[in-house]
Amino acid sequence: MSPNTEIIRNLGILAGAGALPREVAEACRSAGLSVFVIDLEGAAADWAGGFPHERVSLGQVGRVLSLLEAHGCDAVTMAGSLVRPSLACVRFDRKGLAFLPRVARLFRRGDDGLLVGIAKLFEEEGFRIIGAETLLPKALARVGAMVGEVPDFAEITLGCAILDALAPFDIGQSVVVEQGRCIAIEAAEGTAAMLDRVSMLRQGRERGGILVKMPKYGQDDRLDRPAIGPDTIRAAAKAGLAGVAVEAGGVLILDATETERCAREAALFLYGFER
Amino acid sequence: MSPNTEIIRNLGILAGAGALPREVAEACRSAGLSVFVIDLEGAAADWAGGFPHERVSLGQVGRVLSLLEAHGCDAVTMAGSLVRPSLACVRFDRKGLAFLPRVARLFRRGDDGLLVGIAKLFEEEGFRIIGAETLLPKALARVGAMVGEVPDFAEITLGCAILDALAPFDIGQSVVVEQGRCIAIEAAEGTAAMLDRVSMLRQGRERGGILVKMPKYGQDDRLDRPAIGPDTIRAAAKAGLAGVAVEAGGVLILDATETERCAREAALFLYGFER
Repeated sequence: MSPNTEIIRNLGILAGAGALPREVAEACRSAGLSVFVIDLEGAAADWAGGFPHERVSLGQVGRVLSLLEAHGCDAVTMAGSLVRPSLACVRFDRKGLAFLPRVARLFRRGDDGLLVGIAKLFEEEGFRIIGAETLLPKALARVGAMVGEVPDFAEITLGCAILDALAPFDIGQSVVVEQGRCIAIEAAEGTAAMLDRVSMLRQGRERGGILVKMPKYGQDDRLDRPAIGPDTIRAAAKAGLAGVAVEAGGVLILDATETERCAREAALFLYGFER
Repeated sequence: MSPNTEIIRNLGILAGAGALPREVAEACRSAGLSVFVIDLEGAAADWAGGFPHERVSLGQVGRVLSLLEAHGCDAVTMAGSLVRPSLACVRFDRKGLAFLPRVARLFRRGDDGLLVGIAKLFEEEGFRIIGAETLLPKALARVGAMVGEVPDFAEITLGCAILDALAPFDIGQSVVVEQGRCIAIEAAEGTAAMLDRVSMLRQGRERGGILVKMPKYGQDDRLDRPAIGPDTIRAAAKAGLAGVAVEAGGVLILDATETERCAREAALFLYGFER
């Protein structure tokens, strides 16, 4: 962990779904840092039991702030994915209701806009926001071929150019490019659902195509850091892709040993490109 | 039909899937223009029987050219969708094999690149390429509210901006925008599959969101003209969208009476915007 995490008393983890929040919690524990897990709508239910934790629903803003304070948290990290709820379905507590007009405005933004707004809310309440990569510095993708051969740079360059073109609209952390053509763009559905679609589209075809994933240009790196893991590799293999290319230093590789093993087993390349 | 179709002796219709090729064939017949339908891989099997037709597979380039010549065709229109095959799965005839190196290069392009290349091939063989909208001039979307209220222009503007940003990469004829946020972008999967995905993503939400569809900026208008029809409206209604916005004069409305009836029935707006 980086030096500036040493002054954290207790870290609150706002945990959505996926492997990232668990990995953050375990890395913190290994490093001797106390954590308190806020299990958002049960997304972390299958592992939060191993840590001090509480389950909250999304509108319980007051309860979240009280819990963080009661557990001595002075910093917060947001990790894992959440399906954006319909605002009409969220049950707000009193503090939540006070924030409602602001939250309603945030809901009219893209994902980054929403996350930046939520992060600002926590900062105003006196919590530092820590990025997942600060807590998992070794998990950032390395430069070069992590598994397999060095891939076709033309396809990676095309993928990056498309993601850069979309970044101003606050959409897209990944695309699939095959033979110079973009066949899928991730928007609200997430990388896993996009790879499922590619699997259907590519049925019966020979092996080919690359998943390109990187942070949106200009996004706040502390929030919604893109990540891949063993599931991503398995989904890419199922879609018949040739490999996965991620921005070195920009994308987290979760459970790196298992991720690399999956890639070797499926004969996929895993490559960290520099921009 | 426009005056320049009057000098066509016989029109060859390269027919893919969907309602567009059938509508083109029927409009031509009503206007007294002879047509010959090339049913690509059986995509037009359920209606081609009503017209002089032959079924061909994609690699039968020589056979297609001979058939067009034998039926006195001097012009060709390409209409309907085709799932791009794996080149390795296409069985080429002798003429097809002669074109193979060129076709292989075309396969490394986006959809427009591929279509432009195929159109050029027909032009070199002496056929004029006619756009579907020349044969269905009345089917182009009108300006303004065709059904329902005038929608939120901010969402339409955002959708257009995203599609414009993607046009240089030869992807995307449609997006779904909801509350200032793009939730889905169409790439190789097509509009119908994208709307299915939006239906899943929006499950349990209140009515909202717009499908925005327009031709790619700079695409050859004679090829792959975007179209919507009753099925599009039904899929948009199933996804809980508030309406559909298409570029006036840019997108074809197939079976316009039925499309508008479906929109009214589902209480969706149908709007033709100007750029």
